[in-house]
Amino acid sequence: MTDETIDPDLCAPRAAARRHGGRAARTAERAAPLAENLRPVRPGMPGGRYNPLSEEGVQRIHRAALDALEQVGFGKAPPSAVEILTGAGAVQGEDGRIRFPRALVEDMLARAARGIVLHGRDPKYDLHLEGTRVHYGTAGAAVHVVDVETGDYRDSTSRDLHEAARLAQGLDNVHFFQRPMVCRDIPDNLEMDLNTLYACCAGTTKHVGTSFTEPAHVAQALEMLHLIAGGEDRWRERPFVSNSNCFVVPPMTFAEESCRTMEACVRGGMPVLLLSAGQAGATSPASIAATIVQATAECLAGLVYVNAMVPGFPAVFGTWPFVSDLRTGAMSGGSGEQALLTAGCAQMHRFYGLPGGAAAGMADSKLPDMQAGWEQAISNTMAGLSGLNMVYEAVGMHASLLGFCPESLVLGDDMLGQVLRCVRGIEVTEDAVSVDVIRQTCLGGPGHYLGSDQTLRLMQTDYVYPAVADRMSPKEWNEKGRPGLVERATARKRRLLEEWRPVIDPATDRAVRERFRIYF
Amino acid sequence: MTDETIDPDLCAPRAAARRHGGRAARTAERAAPLAENLRPVRPGMPGGRYNPLSEEGVQRIHRAALDALEQVGFGKAPPSAVEILTGAGAVQGEDGRIRFPRALVEDMLARAARGIVLHGRDPKYDLHLEGTRVHYGTAGAAVHVVDVETGDYRDSTSRDLHEAARLAQGLDNVHFFQRPMVCRDIPDNLEMDLNTLYACCAGTTKHVGTSFTEPAHVAQALEMLHLIAGGEDRWRERPFVSNSNCFVVPPMTFAEESCRTMEACVRGGMPVLLLSAGQAGATSPASIAATIVQATAECLAGLVYVNAMVPGFPAVFGTWPFVSDLRTGAMSGGSGEQALLTAGCAQMHRFYGLPGGAAAGMADSKLPDMQAGWEQAISNTMAGLSGLNMVYEAVGMHASLLGFCPESLVLGDDMLGQVLRCVRGIEVTEDAVSVDVIRQTCLGGPGHYLGSDQTLRLMQTDYVYPAVADRMSPKEWNEKGRPGLVERATARKRRLLEEWRPVIDPATDRAVRERFRIYF
Repeated sequence: MTDETIDPDLCAPRAAARRHGGRAARTAERAAPLAENLRPVRPGMPGGRYNPLSEEGVQRIHRAALDALEQVGFGKAPPSAVEILTGAGAVQGEDGRIRFPRALVEDMLARAARGIVLHGRDPKYDLHLEGTRVHYGTAGAAVHVVDVETGDYRDSTSRDLHEAARLAQGLDNVHFFQRPMVCRDIPDNLEMDLNTLYACCAGTTKHVGTSFTEPAHVAQALEMLHLIAGGEDRWRERPFVSNSNCFVVPPMTFAEESCRTMEACVRGGMPVLLLSAGQAGATSPASIAATIVQATAECLAGLVYVNAMVPGFPAVFGTWPFVSDLRTGAMSGGSGEQALLTAGCAQMHRFYGLPGGAAAGMADSKLPDMQAGWEQAISNTMAGLSGLNMVYEAVGMHASLLGFCPESLVLGDDMLGQVLRCVRGIEVTEDAVSVDVIRQTCLGGPGHYLGSDQTLRLMQTDYVYPAVADRMSPKEWNEKGRPGLVERATARKRRLLEEWRPVIDPATDRAVRERFRIYF
Repeated sequence: MTDETIDPDLCAPRAAARRHGGRAARTAERAAPLAENLRPVRPGMPGGRYNPLSEEGVQRIHRAALDALEQVGFGKAPPSAVEILTGAGAVQGEDGRIRFPRALVEDMLARAARGIVLHGRDPKYDLHLEGTRVHYGTAGAAVHVVDVETGDYRDSTSRDLHEAARLAQGLDNVHFFQRPMVCRDIPDNLEMDLNTLYACCAGTTKHVGTSFTEPAHVAQALEMLHLIAGGEDRWRERPFVSNSNCFVVPPMTFAEESCRTMEACVRGGMPVLLLSAGQAGATSPASIAATIVQATAECLAGLVYVNAMVPGFPAVFGTWPFVSDLRTGAMSGGSGEQALLTAGCAQMHRFYGLPGGAAAGMADSKLPDMQAGWEQAISNTMAGLSGLNMVYEAVGMHASLLGFCPESLVLGDDMLGQVLRCVRGIEVTEDAVSVDVIRQTCLGGPGHYLGSDQTLRLMQTDYVYPAVADRMSPKEWNEKGRPGLVERATARKRRLLEEWRPVIDPATDRAVRERFRIYF
């Protein structure tokens, strides 16, 4: 029997692997916690080895975006926006639309903040948005929570949101927590906004993103944030919450209320995510390239707006175009077209040198199944490789953003670990490719690399091991009773919730609960 | 209630989508078969927008591979290899190892075939391996078939293999069929090899890959292929089967039997996949870069070997390094490290301008679950974006290649459709980014793009729609009884098998069965 009979495409590796013992020892060694600087993946690793657009394509999109701003402009600007924008040099036409001369856009691009920090309440979670540094996190406005045991899509609540924040706190590869679902247990919009904010902040010390239903709600939100931070000064020094702001209703129309919300946030020192969420084929063009044009134009308008108010104010360039299934008009966040849109936008961010964010990782599938796995992985991989600074909606989102699934969030952390390993890439140092290792193994050496110094050194620093995902052999899997993936995720979820410790001190928590009605 | 109350991160797209009717009409229009030239994705689209290695990194790996060939060389060359290789200019040292001077390697690189065709029995399935053209297909040597209903891993049989070939025939995004599993129902190795070959060829007219347990088996295999082709001349004119050949036992050792098998295939006009299947940390270095060095060196040795026999003989540069879970030594085909290895190898193929193949899409998970989805998607996406000509093992493989799952193959076709859409990329023509579409929509137009000419045109040519994957809303999904993904895959599998028609004419089939004992 030759090597080919056993495993023709694999030749001998399995046999070689079996030759060597010490498995238990190695497993134990790897289970010990790694020093922060030795961890194989971490937030903010540089991506950018994938360039979905040619340089000419980037220029073409840039020019078309400037054309759109100059020629088509924006409708429905609220009076405050008219004042701010025309004050900066934009022109309101007889049709009421605000048009942006290219010189104005270029000036504001020169003035815009670069290399911004989105703070965590704990500084170790600070996100440094510069170059092609990649961060993954949650986001969305799901109205349902997915129950993996029953398959039910039930209304999401403030308790669910708080639980998700607590989970995010314990998941290494989830770098920030923008609220992924709506608190539908709270009928009053002001109370909903305040509970959304507190559910996030009381669950995690990572950077939090949220949004507001009305401009008037910002004041009380800031009041809460000052309480949590220990004063307005401390809040303004390290604002740990950003405002996800849909200032535009695509195509090319201001969302009046959101614009005023944005103004309130800027005044309150809260960084803004300038979010343009068109849907290709519905509210933006069906052509992927043209949708990137429109999203870019829309976010450039937001950039002018913010920088006309406060030059250099921290803002994330939030080109979030989505995809329609053109047969039905329904959203398809899990599609390949979506992955391209997001990656293409990331390259535009790099072109401008601006901190950027976009959406990836959304599944159309209703459950954390194989479809969800590939849908989430394709767009997250391409987002990371293209060097997107902020990958929003990266984990937990199902049914094209209508459902949030906690088990999927937990599984997503494993998926992101792998994706981050890919973002980190291949280090081709002279040491890494040294022929010495090969020589020593082949010429008079053991003929395999299992116990070599390089192997033992790299097994911790260069290899990512999943927490839930399963690498057992079929034999071992059988012997362990064929554990299901989702059940293992549920178990990790429970462990994470048990291990979680409050992140707001009791006095502050009391003060918040005295001042505001907290539902959870 | 503002737009933000409904769906803060999405703003208005859902509402806009709902405004417009005609869903049934659009669904029907899209359901009509598309002309071949209008299909949004097809085999052989160029990838290569992702470059995992820097130019310097590529050069470094190339130089290190040449060093390894010159300094370390290959052990255990069979007499025929010694004769062929030393005849060409390689040197056998006193330690018995064959070393390759760099000038020899460079000469053979200049002589090697480029732009080769791997033929389908039906010419429409011909694979043109040149540049960064990407093709996905099956491969492997699974010893189990995964039963998705019971979770059983049972022995794979010739019938299973034939069924998989029939499925591949109907799956548009599976471009070739290398045998993914071993016929364990056949105790005799010669009969196993012949049945493996016939199970594939009798199931699909796409290009077939196979391997042989002994060199002596090649003669009868060729006899069968001549029968199928209608004569030796016709076989040699369009050889529709390639030999997946593990000529090397990593590290840097010839597999004697496989070498002689390769020689027999070359003489018989059967293209070879020169397959180096090291396992990082076990049979090749733990450093990803160094494993690419070793795989490159090993395949270069194979390249010298083949071209020393027949200059310009069609061969695929098969750097297939795998990944070990270094805690256990077990293979982890589903890891991020694997995706990097494969993509890095693809870039080396581009550097040499050689037709190349590597492995992606393997799941460690035992079942077609969410883990399998992300594992398969990450490596397949990166393989395609890096412009890998032949992506082997792309679909259906579980438990690190130990199990083949037919339902997973069917689901994988949907996954590959999305991945191929990403490989196709973003066309940024002046027409695609024209501001006219935006202008006409915003200035006096309908304010949305749902019925625009561009949308209706692109919905067929630019958007990929899955066959099994589900994009229903939660409401619709509920109303339809929450159909499960795997059940839907089983249903498509059954339909495909019912729709399949024999691809060997009855007279030839009779002739084959008279000459050889066929088990299925």
